[in-house]
Amino acid sequence: MLRQALRAADVPPFHAMAMARRAGEVEARGQRVFHLEVGQPATGAPAAARAAVVAAMERADPLGYTNAPGSMALRRRICRHYAEAYGVEVATDDVIVVAGASAGFTLAFLAAFDAGDRVGVLEPGYPCYRNALLALGVEPVAIPVGPDTRWAPTPELLAAAGELDGLVIASPSNPTGTVLSAERMAAVVQWCATNNVQLIADEIYHGITYAGPATTVLAATRDAVLVNSFSKYFSMTGWRLGWMVLPQHLRDAVERLQQNIYICAPHVSQVAGLAAFDATAELDGHVQRYASNRQLLTAGLAAAGITQVAAADGAFYVYADVTELATEAGDSMALCYQWLDGLGVAATPGLDFDLARGHRFVRFSYAGAAADIAEACDRLAQWVR
Amino acid sequence: MLRQALRAADVPPFHAMAMARRAGEVEARGQRVFHLEVGQPATGAPAAARAAVVAAMERADPLGYTNAPGSMALRRRICRHYAEAYGVEVATDDVIVVAGASAGFTLAFLAAFDAGDRVGVLEPGYPCYRNALLALGVEPVAIPVGPDTRWAPTPELLAAAGELDGLVIASPSNPTGTVLSAERMAAVVQWCATNNVQLIADEIYHGITYAGPATTVLAATRDAVLVNSFSKYFSMTGWRLGWMVLPQHLRDAVERLQQNIYICAPHVSQVAGLAAFDATAELDGHVQRYASNRQLLTAGLAAAGITQVAAADGAFYVYADVTELATEAGDSMALCYQWLDGLGVAATPGLDFDLARGHRFVRFSYAGAAADIAEACDRLAQWVR
Repeated sequence: MLRQALRAADVPPFHAMAMARRAGEVEARGQRVFHLEVGQPATGAPAAARAAVVAAMERADPLGYTNAPGSMALRRRICRHYAEAYGVEVATDDVIVVAGASAGFTLAFLAAFDAGDRVGVLEPGYPCYRNALLALGVEPVAIPVGPDTRWAPTPELLAAAGELDGLVIASPSNPTGTVLSAERMAAVVQWCATNNVQLIADEIYHGITYAGPATTVLAATRDAVLVNSFSKYFSMTGWRLGWMVLPQHLRDAVERLQQNIYICAPHVSQVAGLAAFDATAELDGHVQRYASNRQLLTAGLAAAGITQVAAADGAFYVYADVTELATEAGDSMALCYQWLDGLGVAATPGLDFDLARGHRFVRFSYAGAAADIAEACDRLAQWVR
Repeated sequence: MLRQALRAADVPPFHAMAMARRAGEVEARGQRVFHLEVGQPATGAPAAARAAVVAAMERADPLGYTNAPGSMALRRRICRHYAEAYGVEVATDDVIVVAGASAGFTLAFLAAFDAGDRVGVLEPGYPCYRNALLALGVEPVAIPVGPDTRWAPTPELLAAAGELDGLVIASPSNPTGTVLSAERMAAVVQWCATNNVQLIADEIYHGITYAGPATTVLAATRDAVLVNSFSKYFSMTGWRLGWMVLPQHLRDAVERLQQNIYICAPHVSQVAGLAAFDATAELDGHVQRYASNRQLLTAGLAAAGITQVAAADGAFYVYADVTELATEAGDSMALCYQWLDGLGVAATPGLDFDLARGHRFVRFSYAGAAADIAEACDRLAQWVR
């Protein structure tokens, strides 16, 4: 009998995407749905990016494969971004353009880790780190963080994980929005250096912060792998475009892997991404909207009795402890399905982010439209009453 | 010391892409290069596809994530294509839209095979099968084919490979252009069924054939994984868009893996791909051009004394036995670098496609412009003299 691979059978669904699919089915039945489940801006690519794509279409640019590391113009522009935004010097050779942060993580995991290696992932954290590691035969090691450290890793928490070959961190983090201070980042970097642990830093929510800019891992070390993306600040989720800044010892491996398992990132998206770097005014406007959505959602959830939320300085999520409601419903997954089917409110069960405690948590995204957030909160408040 | 993973160190470069990079460097020095190295049409996406993208840009469609399996409109259109072009019924649930055939192979390999499994790959064949399998811890087992079977696999050749868990075939094949007849395809399918071998069929060169249409694996079995792409017939390499038709036992695994390691295929490319299905007249014109380029290249190579070529009924390559020239130069890799640096003629060394015999072979692509092919052949003929 032909069958699934054992390692594939081990990989859980990404519930946020499964929930989005279910939400689509509910909408197809004619019911209105308020989308607080996927980390997706309501806006599309900035006007400058769209104009660049139109221009490429009109001149019938063939848009064939780029070199595996990506278009040189875009790689140069990324280097300029590090100089201007962080005062950090990055060489074009260090930069590889990838098909979204998803591709960045897969490439980083394949380049740096062998089957059986142990790689630390924070819980709660973005589930695809863990799931992609599993798919690639690498053992994800859960490192629980909580409100006592503002959901941030500390050397003590890392040391408790036992011997590690790698560590994935994110700042700002999904789902908690935690931003690591320069001191916390330096402590993590130092711990990795001391323990010979390959650090992978997810910076895809950079630019979406509410208490000053986030610090980049590059300010503390050049031994880490940095992954960034055009999906969040640049508002280009569906374009599947991101980049990595690589340490010298992984550059060659990542380029060979890219040639063989991706060839290159989508060329049309590279054209759009290059232009998006000059759309700061439009994109900063989105961030202002997230800031006001954040207040709206936090207040709205509080009115619905949901007050135990992570103190978030970045990204566009509220990660809420809903122990009481979840217990009544069964768990947070059952609760989310109740909300979706009964209220048309789509949110993501915490199980995506934390296998141990996620059944008591829910993630709400405030990347969408303010009116939807307000209506969703009203419905939740009524339902709770 | 931080280091590359052992499995990454094992993955060779895709020489065609490395050669393209070197060709770019030669061009940057101001030298003219004739590109016969990458399997890339000189044309871009068809006009209808470009118009659809412009329309999406102009209405400021956010183009966010699609569901993991892809836009329903595109999946339906793919099903219609199988009904119209092959008389085969495919359900939308069987179709998943992926980020290029590259993503299709990675998903298929992860979903169907565990680390240590043995998967047959034909030699010569597309190198990324072997290299991606290696990266994922699966053992590629070379199955040599040659002119005696018109470069096609037979049950006898397959049986000689020892016990297999999977088999990758391609029709038309890269680099030889071999098209499997319905009988040959049925024999391979039967052999896989008897031996419990998961068949993966690469059909990305379908539509580019010179002696009648190629038969699809779906006509013989629904247990195989079919991978197809918009890169070749649809002339959309850089858009990184393809699709899979999946057997029931792998659908769920592939969807979960897609959610976690790709999220979805590029949305803008899905918009373009949908429209490209209606550009048959323009795309069939490209195929006529390939047919005439094929004659031009075959005649031009013959004039340069290169006459030992695979009898190709599809794709857009000539795979040539250049034993004598390669031996003089050292091997086909050295020969290709000589041609590139000395003549500005870029071709791909056979080592990409055949580890055992590739040092005596070179692949020439005729996907590009006729004038470039003619000039490249003239330069080769002069050089040989």
